[in-house]
Amino acid sequence: MTVKLLALYTKPEDEAAFLEHYHSVHLPLVEKIPGLQKAVVNRIEKNLMGGEPPYFLIAELHFADQAALDAAMASPENRAAGKDVAGFAKGLITMLLATES
Amino acid sequence: MTVKLLALYTKPEDEAAFLEHYHSVHLPLVEKIPGLQKAVVNRIEKNLMGGEPPYFLIAELHFADQAALDAAMASPENRAAGKDVAGFAKGLITMLLATES
Repeated sequence: MTVKLLALYTKPEDEAAFLEHYHSVHLPLVEKIPGLQKAVVNRIEKNLMGGEPPYFLIAELHFADQAALDAAMASPENRAAGKDVAGFAKGLITMLLATES
Repeated sequence: MTVKLLALYTKPEDEAAFLEHYHSVHLPLVEKIPGLQKAVVNRIEKNLMGGEPPYFLIAELHFADQAALDAAMASPENRAAGKDVAGFAKGLITMLLATES
């Protein structure tokens, strides 16, 4: 059963700067995390219920199972990605653990 | 570019009844929507930031492109799924439009 980390980002002040950092710095760090099967980046375009969307971007990090995720979380590569996120996405991110059914 | 509908559900009062309806009634209706490439259901297990997760379940409906999504939204099958959701998930759901990059 695929286990996913979902990273939900609210809207940054400077969207262009956020996306530039996200794609050129953050995602390459994430892609080095051992055991990561794939990273999927979803840009939120619209809230179909009306009003502003509650999130700007939702990223999915896929792992084969809980053991793979646990090993990934303990890795230095994950610490590097976490340190990066604490900078550019401070106050913007919610991280959820999900299982795909 | 894959276009997705993300359905974010907050925690229902009766989780077991919600999941029973979701899997036995709602998902079969969703799977009849023309142009749907796949439906992915993510159960939210934990908020890694601490506290209660903001959502209970996040479903992804994948479409090939915006035209496929537009056609799907206009279909009677989508209206049937929407009518169902307005019953069992009233007040629980947020629907977002996303593009996968």
